[in-house]
Amino acid sequence: MAEGEVVKNKQVILKDYVTGLLQESDMCISNENTVKLKVPEGSNGILVKNLYLSCDPFMRHLMNNPQKSPGSFFQSFKPGSAITGYGVSKVVDSGHPNLKKGDLVWGITGWEEYSLLTWTENHFKIEHLDVPLSYYTGILGMPGLTAYVGVFEVCKPKGEKVFVSDACGAVGQLVGQFAKMMGCYVVGSAGSAEKVDLLKNKFGFEDAFNYKKEDDFAGALKRYFPEGIDIYFDNVGGKMLDAVLLNMRINGRIVVCGMISQYNRGKTDGFHNLMSIIYKRIHITGFMVDDYYHLYSKFLDAVLPLIREGKIVYVEDTAEGLASGPAALVGLFNGRNVGKQVVFVAHE
Amino acid sequence: MAEGEVVKNKQVILKDYVTGLLQESDMCISNENTVKLKVPEGSNGILVKNLYLSCDPFMRHLMNNPQKSPGSFFQSFKPGSAITGYGVSKVVDSGHPNLKKGDLVWGITGWEEYSLLTWTENHFKIEHLDVPLSYYTGILGMPGLTAYVGVFEVCKPKGEKVFVSDACGAVGQLVGQFAKMMGCYVVGSAGSAEKVDLLKNKFGFEDAFNYKKEDDFAGALKRYFPEGIDIYFDNVGGKMLDAVLLNMRINGRIVVCGMISQYNRGKTDGFHNLMSIIYKRIHITGFMVDDYYHLYSKFLDAVLPLIREGKIVYVEDTAEGLASGPAALVGLFNGRNVGKQVVFVAHE
Repeated sequence: MAEGEVVKNKQVILKDYVTGLLQESDMCISNENTVKLKVPEGSNGILVKNLYLSCDPFMRHLMNNPQKSPGSFFQSFKPGSAITGYGVSKVVDSGHPNLKKGDLVWGITGWEEYSLLTWTENHFKIEHLDVPLSYYTGILGMPGLTAYVGVFEVCKPKGEKVFVSDACGAVGQLVGQFAKMMGCYVVGSAGSAEKVDLLKNKFGFEDAFNYKKEDDFAGALKRYFPEGIDIYFDNVGGKMLDAVLLNMRINGRIVVCGMISQYNRGKTDGFHNLMSIIYKRIHITGFMVDDYYHLYSKFLDAVLPLIREGKIVYVEDTAEGLASGPAALVGLFNGRNVGKQVVFVAHE
Repeated sequence: MAEGEVVKNKQVILKDYVTGLLQESDMCISNENTVKLKVPEGSNGILVKNLYLSCDPFMRHLMNNPQKSPGSFFQSFKPGSAITGYGVSKVVDSGHPNLKKGDLVWGITGWEEYSLLTWTENHFKIEHLDVPLSYYTGILGMPGLTAYVGVFEVCKPKGEKVFVSDACGAVGQLVGQFAKMMGCYVVGSAGSAEKVDLLKNKFGFEDAFNYKKEDDFAGALKRYFPEGIDIYFDNVGGKMLDAVLLNMRINGRIVVCGMISQYNRGKTDGFHNLMSIIYKRIHITGFMVDDYYHLYSKFLDAVLPLIREGKIVYVEDTAEGLASGPAALVGLFNGRNVGKQVVFVAHE
């Protein structure tokens, strides 16, 4: 392709707002769009070629009908248009003062082959290329920073007993490893025997269990934490959080990072054990990674050496090709992915 | 009565463990017991005459069948025996090194005319008698310390927008006044027009509403906090807490002190708005006054002058006579009391 050329631009389109469980048929692949590989005159945006796209649970929220979600915190996707999400991209043309053709960036981009990005405040130029490029959708991107700030800025564990749900996911696998680095006893939950094995044998968790095999979450937690949980890093919400409340220790802390079990529900699960908050003097804190991007370079300084020295590992599940994107995204909510779900779109 | 004399000892007896809403018929008045007005030889306990008894919501928990409440945090009352609770009492006989006959104390005592107290670690000798003695069941007792530590140790408000539920209760009326002293904008909810009037015109809340007249708690809160709530001091739990979650501001704090709406329920209300914890970065903290009794003298130093100077006011609702105790206690849960519910048992 040449700069300024007009080319076909394959896209993943949201057909309409989604109710209930996300399905592949809620999206379609369109080959009808074209794009001019040039930033419009006077724009300080960038025109990028998308290389990797990230499947993240929060994207489900953006598919809700805003009319039916008053007070929603997100601006929904536009039905009929390409969905957006985090990704790794290469600059094809730039009107931006600090980004030039050939640069690699990560940040919010379109689920399409090429995107014109006019709002680039939260895009980061990728400077370190000795690690897999896809890592900038995961361990070195939004999920990695989420795990890092969740552990080191919000939760600050020190040798305590920690439970992590969705522990094999993009965030959970790192939370567990970071907590281990802080001397904690770490147990995770995940949704298959394969993932439980990874948690115990690759990520170094003390123990792990398959929540799909447990009828009684509170009883399962009691097995792994007979004296109670000091810190719960919540990625799932719902019934697991309710069961955790029964198993917390006095003065325990709950860090609420995500509630993936609830994202496809119109009305979320009821909670019945909140009285524990009083009697156990529990502290609950919600956080959003959006508040911590100013720590990104500090995070890179901390995590890059750990990756290079093999002190931290990261498992990705890569879907091949933009057309595989919808199935990969849907798979997040039924646990199809093993590790961070990435979509490979194109080579540089 | 003379020391060592054996006298009749009227008691409020719990007939059996309670399920569902507490009723007067769950208790009975017994005139069958007698008591010797003397501490047993070698005991370091005290024999007291009870003057005022305090009706507190937590007492309902102690009426649950422990067999049906595994993992309960409380030791239940014993069916067939007198219930216990906070009260103001006069020492009739003492084996205690620091308490002598004639001293006035407050702490846990029996719902009966005379009690033998062998566990006196959390009893305080009453030193300041220029304020009503009944205050040591309320503003100068457990509820007062609860409000004080809830505001000044846990919540630490500074000029923020504060919502207090059960705002006319033993704790709520003080929380609001303390928050006002910290420059806050304070709105309270209560269960009658009379209480709403007290909140606005006696306790100096900026505004108040009768939750029994509101079908939509979330909508009501939106009227009083169009820009959202910074701090919620929760005394009720349940649906109000769920509605508050929808109306919190980013980085808002919720201090959970009590959940009176839930105490008579086998299964508590479901919560559906916990996702707000993440998107609004909400901090929730539960606390128990039991952890703060070491601050009692600091609390007295702070609050006694405020009472004497009329800078803080306190409303009590006094039931006359031990036999009126069961109805007074039941009344807590249907909002019969206006202000702190006290039972007057006897003059000194």
